[in-house]
Amino acid sequence: LVSRMRAFGTTIFAEMSALAVQTGSINLGQGFPDTDGPAAMLDRAVQAVGSGANQYPPGPGVPELRRAVAEHRADHYRLDYDPAREVLVTVGATEAIAASVLALCEPGDEVIAFEPYYDSYAASIALAQARLVPVTLRPVEGRFTFDPDELRAAVTPRTRAVLVNSPHNPTGTVFTREELEVVAELCRERDLIAITDEVYEHLTFDGVAHVPMATLPGMRERTVMISSAGKTFSVTGWKTGWVCAPAPLVTAVQTVKQFLTFTASAPWQLAVAYGLRHELEWVSALRSGLQDKRDRLMEGLAAAGFEVLRPAGTYFVQTDIRPLGFTDGLELTRRLPELAGVVAIPTQVFYNRPERGRHYVRFAFCKKDEVIDEAAARLKRLS
Amino acid sequence: LVSRMRAFGTTIFAEMSALAVQTGSINLGQGFPDTDGPAAMLDRAVQAVGSGANQYPPGPGVPELRRAVAEHRADHYRLDYDPAREVLVTVGATEAIAASVLALCEPGDEVIAFEPYYDSYAASIALAQARLVPVTLRPVEGRFTFDPDELRAAVTPRTRAVLVNSPHNPTGTVFTREELEVVAELCRERDLIAITDEVYEHLTFDGVAHVPMATLPGMRERTVMISSAGKTFSVTGWKTGWVCAPAPLVTAVQTVKQFLTFTASAPWQLAVAYGLRHELEWVSALRSGLQDKRDRLMEGLAAAGFEVLRPAGTYFVQTDIRPLGFTDGLELTRRLPELAGVVAIPTQVFYNRPERGRHYVRFAFCKKDEVIDEAAARLKRLS
Ligand SMILES: CSCCC(=O)C(=O)O
Ligand SMILES: CSCCC(=O)C(=O)O
Repeated sequence: LVSRMRAFGTTIFAEMSALAVQTGSINLGQGFPDTDGPAAMLDRAVQAVGSGANQYPPGPGVPELRRAVAEHRADHYRLDYDPAREVLVTVGATEAIAASVLALCEPGDEVIAFEPYYDSYAASIALAQARLVPVTLRPVEGRFTFDPDELRAAVTPRTRAVLVNSPHNPTGTVFTREELEVVAELCRERDLIAITDEVYEHLTFDGVAHVPMATLPGMRERTVMISSAGKTFSVTGWKTGWVCAPAPLVTAVQTVKQFLTFTASAPWQLAVAYGLRHELEWVSALRSGLQDKRDRLMEGLAAAGFEVLRPAGTYFVQTDIRPLGFTDGLELTRRLPELAGVVAIPTQVFYNRPERGRHYVRFAFCKKDEVIDEAAARLKRLS
Repeated sequence: LVSRMRAFGTTIFAEMSALAVQTGSINLGQGFPDTDGPAAMLDRAVQAVGSGANQYPPGPGVPELRRAVAEHRADHYRLDYDPAREVLVTVGATEAIAASVLALCEPGDEVIAFEPYYDSYAASIALAQARLVPVTLRPVEGRFTFDPDELRAAVTPRTRAVLVNSPHNPTGTVFTREELEVVAELCRERDLIAITDEVYEHLTFDGVAHVPMATLPGMRERTVMISSAGKTFSVTGWKTGWVCAPAPLVTAVQTVKQFLTFTASAPWQLAVAYGLRHELEWVSALRSGLQDKRDRLMEGLAAAGFEVLRPAGTYFVQTDIRPLGFTDGLELTRRLPELAGVVAIPTQVFYNRPERGRHYVRFAFCKKDEVIDEAAARLKRLS
């Protein structure tokens, strides 16, 4: 393994999901739902397989999906993207992030990211031989946020981009317009690119609305906006995502993307185009269902003795394990199958400075009610 | 776009396939069949979509597919790989190549590749900031091969790996055991890794058998063997490939792969596992059908005035355009839609030294007979 990647082992998701399978534990670790997306969308995929959509689609994606993405951005956010030149289909958001970082960051460039972060950010930055400069999110009245001065201090002449994930995994924070404006101001002043991971864009709760960075003044022109079908339509195994950005940025990302995977699978693209056009009500129902599940899991975790931090979006609840007498989340999650028959994710692995997140553990609530209840019951064994 | 990628534009495949769509030309450019894979395998994919296989599969791939790949390697080539630790599922061979090069090559390392080469090789090597050292394949009695001395001279203390593609795209050469042994000897002597792209492993003609590099003495331990379902089962749009290698090499490749795309789509993996177990007779029929198509296209191209070089494998025929009075294949292929309503691939773009391939044009024959016949008829307009 090359030196720049030696800090990276198997992802925590693969490790913990394998542990769940091995031990027969309830998997509240990796974020995937245990019910599938809208039936008519699945049917559309089946139809695509049966009607000859099984060969290479166009490199940048099936035109039907690129149009549906552009229409969705226009209808939902009043953002205009030209489907022919400003939308690129990728193998999930993960490929979009890797291709964006590899396309835009020179060796030695700095990329600011909020820690804790989805681990592929650090790996993509390392692959590009760029440097991740972390800005820590800390709970303020139970909600994770950043200190604007700390963010400003992180910018240097080598800063090339800011990676912004909102709704934020793993903390569940949905950044407000004001918070995003702090980032946007820096991007405009210092001529930075915003690479935004918005895969949980539709999964927000309590009436909180997702604000895309590209809708802020002067930001459309410098934002690489990333999202995907996996979380929106409960088809995480379809690996279908997209990038929206001005043509020169999309062209750069595509130049790298085409050599990572060439194209994304054709049949899913047709089905997801259908989903974006016809299944947004299904998504609304998913969102309100998830809000109930969030509350259900929060209650269960609180009853089991965790300190629980309320997320405004995503699939995930963040907990502080100290009230239970534990101090190290990695140690606890590795023992959790044996202690309670449950798998969770130690948040500390998403930090450059793990000690800042040592006492946090993340639980996923994108699961059937009875699964959540059973996990909650089992976790009571801890106290 | 970062400087290391500035030499790369849109792939020739995307450019030429878009040109075919725009001009309504017959597309004998990019290599994808116009008939789909085995019906029972497509049914298996449909069944997977309907039965809840739509969420993230395990990072290294669905166990069923990893086992089927290992069994296939054992049955077909007497190569033993442990499905749990020595087989990794990827988003097609393209991701496998990118991840292998990124995982194994440090900046400044040299990678030897035979030119002309599938263009992702050069791009993956550039992404890794390594250096591609080309060894040119030249026709000897109508078959492209290399000069062993030229290969030996290409090795330096910085050489890390040799990228070997057999059956070879775009020339159609199937390397003999003797040719592979020249490479293998160097790998053993100079402690090099062989990264082998064997996606056309089943598509060989005239009784010529594919020899995997890993079957040569001392080579299993240093070979990253790559293949995929796209070409074998006529599902190029499914983007499902795999790597077989000793565990430390697979672990290295997986470390990078997991951050490029996380996983490959789940439903295809189940279907391809079925294909490897139950549809190898279908593949035999595909192979003999393709041999007939090769002959059909060769005849048509010869009748149209091309000098035609007979391939022993792959989807592709290489032609020399000089007998028709043309000298530059890139110029010709860009005009070919207007001149003849046909799209082909200019071989020169697959060289570090394009002048060595200026007069070659590649045509694909993985098409219905009537499509081949119509293309041949149209190409007669050239003379
Ligand atoms: C590869 S897992 C992708 C993100 C996610 O689902 C998680 O954080 O659990
Ligand atoms: C992305 S195209 C992959 C290879 C191929 O099919 C071709 O060479 O035409």
